[in-house]
Amino acid sequence: MDDTHIRLAHGNGGSYMRELIETVFARHLANPLLNVQADAVALPAMEGGGVVMVTTDGFTVQPLEFPGGTIGSLAVHGTVNDLAVSGATPYYLTLNAFIEEGFDIARLERIIASLAEAAREARVVIVAGDTKVLPHGEVGGLYLATTGVGVRAQHLQLGLDRVQPGDAVLVSGPVGDHGIAVLLAREEFGLRGELLSDAASVFPLTQALASLNGLRFMRDPTRGGLATVLHEICRATGLEVRLNQTAIPVREQVAAVCEMLGYDPLFLACEGRVVAVVEASQAPEALTRLQALPQGREAAIIGSVNAGRAHVVLQTELGGERILEELEDDPLPRIC
Amino acid sequence: MDDTHIRLAHGNGGSYMRELIETVFARHLANPLLNVQADAVALPAMEGGGVVMVTTDGFTVQPLEFPGGTIGSLAVHGTVNDLAVSGATPYYLTLNAFIEEGFDIARLERIIASLAEAAREARVVIVAGDTKVLPHGEVGGLYLATTGVGVRAQHLQLGLDRVQPGDAVLVSGPVGDHGIAVLLAREEFGLRGELLSDAASVFPLTQALASLNGLRFMRDPTRGGLATVLHEICRATGLEVRLNQTAIPVREQVAAVCEMLGYDPLFLACEGRVVAVVEASQAPEALTRLQALPQGREAAIIGSVNAGRAHVVLQTELGGERILEELEDDPLPRIC
Repeated sequence: MDDTHIRLAHGNGGSYMRELIETVFARHLANPLLNVQADAVALPAMEGGGVVMVTTDGFTVQPLEFPGGTIGSLAVHGTVNDLAVSGATPYYLTLNAFIEEGFDIARLERIIASLAEAAREARVVIVAGDTKVLPHGEVGGLYLATTGVGVRAQHLQLGLDRVQPGDAVLVSGPVGDHGIAVLLAREEFGLRGELLSDAASVFPLTQALASLNGLRFMRDPTRGGLATVLHEICRATGLEVRLNQTAIPVREQVAAVCEMLGYDPLFLACEGRVVAVVEASQAPEALTRLQALPQGREAAIIGSVNAGRAHVVLQTELGGERILEELEDDPLPRIC
Repeated sequence: MDDTHIRLAHGNGGSYMRELIETVFARHLANPLLNVQADAVALPAMEGGGVVMVTTDGFTVQPLEFPGGTIGSLAVHGTVNDLAVSGATPYYLTLNAFIEEGFDIARLERIIASLAEAAREARVVIVAGDTKVLPHGEVGGLYLATTGVGVRAQHLQLGLDRVQPGDAVLVSGPVGDHGIAVLLAREEFGLRGELLSDAASVFPLTQALASLNGLRFMRDPTRGGLATVLHEICRATGLEVRLNQTAIPVREQVAAVCEMLGYDPLFLACEGRVVAVVEASQAPEALTRLQALPQGREAAIIGSVNAGRAHVVLQTELGGERILEELEDDPLPRIC
C-alpha cells in the first residue's frame, strides 16, 4: 500500500502512528493543552466556579462528508450541543478515531480540518485523543467519538423533572434539515438538492435562554428527531405534549422529500436545533431571544405540556388530532 | 431477527434503544450519577482540590473475551491506567459503544458486566455513555471508547521533561503477558496456555510511587510495549536508555511463545504494568514500594538513562549490545 492511505501500522503505537498523529491530528488541532506525548492532560480551572459537566457521543454518519458538514464537524457540534442544552458552557473535548485500513489520508485530513474549524468556532479545544486502525472491511471508513467537559452555573436547575402542566414548547428552527441533507448526499437515492445540514453549535441559543426565569428544560433533537424528545418529556413527566402542526417550522424541500419517500420530518435528526420547555408566560420572551440570533430566526412556539395521558398529540392543519407513536424502526440510520 | 441479537433499531434513539440501554447498560453500570435521560452529567467536586486530568482511549481487541479480561474490563483498565501514570486519582469514566448488528445480546451483557466489575474494583463510576449500532459486516462485533476524569495533586510534577541522565528505569512486573494471552485466545494460532492477561488497574502501584521524592515519569506500556515507552523517553530527552536484558521480567511461557512465533516480548502490550523513571538514589525505595504490592511482586530495576545517543540499547545476557529499533510494522494488531 502506498503512503497516501492508512495502514494497519498507523495504529500500532510505533513510528507510523506517531507520524500520522503529528502530521494530521496534532497539526490541525494544535493548542497549548494538547500534548500528544502525555497519557492524560491537565485541564486549567474553568471560569465561574460552577458545576463541571461531562457528556459523550459516537459518530458514524454516512457519507462522511455532506452538504453543511463532515463527520468531523458533527463530532464537535453533537457533543458541544449536549453540554449546551444542559445549561453548560463547553470548554474541552477529547477525540477517539476508529479508522479503516486503506482510508485516504487526504480525506482524513479534510475531515480533521473541518473538525478543527468547528472547534474553533464553538470555542472548545481538543485536549486529548486516541486513534485505532482496523482491518479493511471493518469500520465503514471512519467512526469518531467525542467527550465534552463544560461548566454550568451553580444556580441553574434544568431537567425533565421541572416540566409543569401549562408549560410552552419551543423549537429554535426548522426540523429535519440534517436528516434530509445527509439522505440527499447518499447516492443511493438519486436525488440532489441545495439543502444544507443545520449542524452547528447551539450554545448561542442556549446561552440566550439560560438566564430566562421559567426555563425548565432544553434538549437538541438528534437521533429520533423532535418527536423523540417530546416522547421523552411525556415518559418522564406523565404529561401530554400537544403540538400545533402548522406552527412547526419545516422547510419546503424537507417536506417535499419526506412526502416523496414516506418520512415524517418530526422523526428526522437535527444537529443545530434546540427544543425548549418554558413556563407559559415566558414563552414570548424566549421566542424573542431565539429570533434575535441568526440561527434562531425561524424559532417558533410549537405546543404545550398538559395534564392528561402521557402521549404526544399532533393537532393537524385540518383541525384533526393524531397521536405520534414512539419510534421503533429506524427511518434513516447512520445520520449522526 | 430475534430478540436475542442486536438490531439496527437498537441504535435509532427510539424504544428499542431505550430498552437496550436500560436493561444492559444502566442495569450493570447503575450508580447515583449515571442518568440515561440526561444530555450531560454534573460531576460532584473531586477530593483534594487538585488539577483535573482527562484522557481518552479506544478499544478494538480481538477476541472480545480472553483469559484474564474482556474488551469491557480492558476499556476500564486502559483509561484508568492513563490517569494513574500521570499521577492522578481516577474518578469518572464515560463510555462509547459501537456495536455490530446481529451481536449476541447475552455476550454484550457479559462484557458490560465485566466492565462494571472492573470499574467497581478501580473505584471509578461510569457517568455518561453513548451507543451506536452499525450494519452487519462492520465493526468486528464491538468497539469501545472510554474517557477518564481524575485529579492530580497540585504539587506533583511528572513528565518526560523531568527525566535526567543517571536516572533509573523500573518496570512493575513481567512484560508481554497481555499480548501473549490475547494471541493465545485467537484460534488461528492453534496454541493454548494457562497465561492470563495482566490487565488491571495500576493505580495502587502509581499511588505507592507518587509520594516518592525523585519520581520523574511513569507510563503504562500498552501498544508497542516496553520498548516503545523507552523510545519515547529517548526521543523526548535526547538521552540513551540502557537496558539490562537479564533484569527484565518475562514469564517463561511468554518467552517460549515469542521464540516460537518470532515476537520480541519487549514490543508486546501490557495492560497492568508501569514503567517508572526515578532518580537513581531513590530506585531501591521505589522497588521496595512496588514489590510490597501484590501486583508489583516481580517489579525490577531494568536499566538507566544516560547521556549519549538517543537510542535504546539492550545489554544482552552474553555481554553483547543490541540497539532496539523503533516499531514499524505491527507485530500483533488488535491487542487493546
